[in-house]
Amino acid sequence: MRELHFNLFLHGCGHHQAAWRHPASAVEQLTDITYYERLAQTAEAGLFDAVFFADGQSVGAPSAGPLWSLEPLTTLAAMARNTTRIGLISTVSTTFHSPFHVARMLASLDHISHGRIGWNVVTSMFDAEAQNHSMDGMPPSDKRYAQAAEFIDVVTALWDSWADDAVLADRNGLFADPTKLYPVDHVGEHFQVAGPLNISRGPQGRPVLFQAGASKAGRNLAARYAEGIYAVAYDQTQGQEYYADLKTRIAGQGRNPATVAIMPGLVTYLGSTEAEARAQQAEIDQLLPATQSLAQLSTFLGQDCSDWDLDMPVPDLPPPAEFAGPQGRYATILRIIETERPTVRQLLGRLAAGGGHCTMVGTPEQVADAIECWFSTGAADGFNLMPPLLPGAIEEFIDRVVPILQRRGLYRTAYTASTLRGHLGLERPSV
Amino acid sequence: MRELHFNLFLHGCGHHQAAWRHPASAVEQLTDITYYERLAQTAEAGLFDAVFFADGQSVGAPSAGPLWSLEPLTTLAAMARNTTRIGLISTVSTTFHSPFHVARMLASLDHISHGRIGWNVVTSMFDAEAQNHSMDGMPPSDKRYAQAAEFIDVVTALWDSWADDAVLADRNGLFADPTKLYPVDHVGEHFQVAGPLNISRGPQGRPVLFQAGASKAGRNLAARYAEGIYAVAYDQTQGQEYYADLKTRIAGQGRNPATVAIMPGLVTYLGSTEAEARAQQAEIDQLLPATQSLAQLSTFLGQDCSDWDLDMPVPDLPPPAEFAGPQGRYATILRIIETERPTVRQLLGRLAAGGGHCTMVGTPEQVADAIECWFSTGAADGFNLMPPLLPGAIEEFIDRVVPILQRRGLYRTAYTASTLRGHLGLERPSV
Repeated sequence: MRELHFNLFLHGCGHHQAAWRHPASAVEQLTDITYYERLAQTAEAGLFDAVFFADGQSVGAPSAGPLWSLEPLTTLAAMARNTTRIGLISTVSTTFHSPFHVARMLASLDHISHGRIGWNVVTSMFDAEAQNHSMDGMPPSDKRYAQAAEFIDVVTALWDSWADDAVLADRNGLFADPTKLYPVDHVGEHFQVAGPLNISRGPQGRPVLFQAGASKAGRNLAARYAEGIYAVAYDQTQGQEYYADLKTRIAGQGRNPATVAIMPGLVTYLGSTEAEARAQQAEIDQLLPATQSLAQLSTFLGQDCSDWDLDMPVPDLPPPAEFAGPQGRYATILRIIETERPTVRQLLGRLAAGGGHCTMVGTPEQVADAIECWFSTGAADGFNLMPPLLPGAIEEFIDRVVPILQRRGLYRTAYTASTLRGHLGLERPSV
Repeated sequence: MRELHFNLFLHGCGHHQAAWRHPASAVEQLTDITYYERLAQTAEAGLFDAVFFADGQSVGAPSAGPLWSLEPLTTLAAMARNTTRIGLISTVSTTFHSPFHVARMLASLDHISHGRIGWNVVTSMFDAEAQNHSMDGMPPSDKRYAQAAEFIDVVTALWDSWADDAVLADRNGLFADPTKLYPVDHVGEHFQVAGPLNISRGPQGRPVLFQAGASKAGRNLAARYAEGIYAVAYDQTQGQEYYADLKTRIAGQGRNPATVAIMPGLVTYLGSTEAEARAQQAEIDQLLPATQSLAQLSTFLGQDCSDWDLDMPVPDLPPPAEFAGPQGRYATILRIIETERPTVRQLLGRLAAGGGHCTMVGTPEQVADAIECWFSTGAADGFNLMPPLLPGAIEEFIDRVVPILQRRGLYRTAYTASTLRGHLGLERPSV
């Protein structure tokens, strides 16, 4: 039977840009491994498939708030030792690494975690990241995606370079069967890798591949390789469009679309009443420094917003055709204005938490209803939860929304598998 | 007061090539993180400075025995969570990585471990390693060492790119003080790195740098950067020569030689009598497959040894001038023959465990005497212990040799510091 899947997307003090300013935030603990371990334990108590780390290669604007902190692969290794069932997904970019290192670290993590590792493949975006890795700027998108495909092929070949039964450990004979180690002999446009890998195959055979395909190139990469997809969908309609498009592309690659979980990002604000939930949202929105947020909005809109009244409705904006800047975010802003009629402060809050991702505000029943609706109408197989504030918002979700979904038979009441591949219902690829 | 330093050099089932064949070996556990954790806990019970991982980037000949298994950085992250005081040193090569990744992972590990991380800098040696990283073969030694120096400079600059007090975490103000984050702006022959790093400074400021300088270029690199040195010294005379040379080179760099611990590799076989210790050594030597070892010896000596009688003395060998192959190992072999008059099997055993490293065989008192002698005559500040068989040989060393050294006032009876830098008596560099 089809069941919902949840990942906990871990990000600093939470996904709201002002989360760290909240009195309940853990801003003092961002380099403390126990903070991440406790969050993973919470998600594990909620029977989630996995925790999920984004990643980036530059410092951002640390005056604005924390961006990156502990490095994901080392963090997941530590977390693996204080959790037992939950999957552990790390973003790793294909633009700055040697694929041998990535294949090896992920295989090592798969052994350390007893089969709970996933890899979220990204190609990175910012020149500041490239400039930390001996490049002048980011390669163009088509080149990055071509490199990503070759990178994944190499990593997969390295994972498959030891047969599952290659290790004999025969004290009177051979440690490994040399006929069951396969050279990779890859010579491609971006990489040359002889192989085999220097670590045996992990419990999952291959760590699970995730991808967040948004652009056409991204969608095609996801359709070709991804076993789980982190999607951006502002509302159910957009979710359905994306879901249908991706499942079609997956089938077009000769793969079974039912095996690939599509999990949009989801920001939730919960309250015993809808008004209480809205008050929760307002409380954290209130923490955004107005000058800084308006300056950011000015950039997004290509006009000076510095004298806008925070508690008045957002003024009318020109149609997309008259806006010269990046279209994606502008379209999201127009959509938020059209559907939510927000004040300026509310718009800043929406943009500060999840941006174009779906935001659900309401009682646990209302949020469960909305989740069920997305799930049953082909908009999502589950969600990558983006709690605005950690750990509170995820604890509340697990305490109050998860039991409703369980009662409705939409969500597991116990883990039935011990690997991430198992949680997702994916087969283990043999070699 | 000057005290001995010990690291436990972790390597598969032990440093003897045949260790994995021993009935007591953990050959089935080489991908089991608890095996490494228990070894680190053992070394911690012995109050060692650190555990130490070598590393390589190719698979070796897995039919001959296990070579590499879990990847060191992910393994140390996990180990950090099940140990509290012992240092954790990983080898990372400067030939295949982007320095930003290395600086970041080591800084992250330093936070995760609360200041217990060390980096053993190597430049790697084998074409098979280069061929896994999109290179045709290894760059020449001078180029590798020039790149290593630049790599270390960049990594150090990245660690220093956040002032110690850069993080404010002021909920009503700034997360970080922008005037205390420093760009790196490195443009060198091998790397371009803008900086700053995307993680704050770790508890040690900079993880501790280790190096194993053997060649002239290696010695100079060690003299310039290393805060601990893993040395190769066959006997005390060679140890003294190396020690004096390195301490002079360190002083020549304007650094204080007393702060840099020189720790030769050390293989020990213990018994209640010397004969019992020799029997222990013979037992494991006996496990070497004769054909394979003689074939390897033929390569080392440049002549066919396949019909040599294992239990007869090694036949006379031509002087170095008449040997056309690599001189270093040949000189070691001549030295072993000259000083130990071994049978062929004994020579194979010596080469199979530690090679040119010092080997001490005897009672705990005898081994403690030898260690004290090296320590007090300027041959060593401590040792990088290379137990022939794990975990047995290190447990025995800690149970039987350590207490003697403690009674003699040569070795700590409790940890007095909580960081690796502290164990080594090194100051924390401020920024």
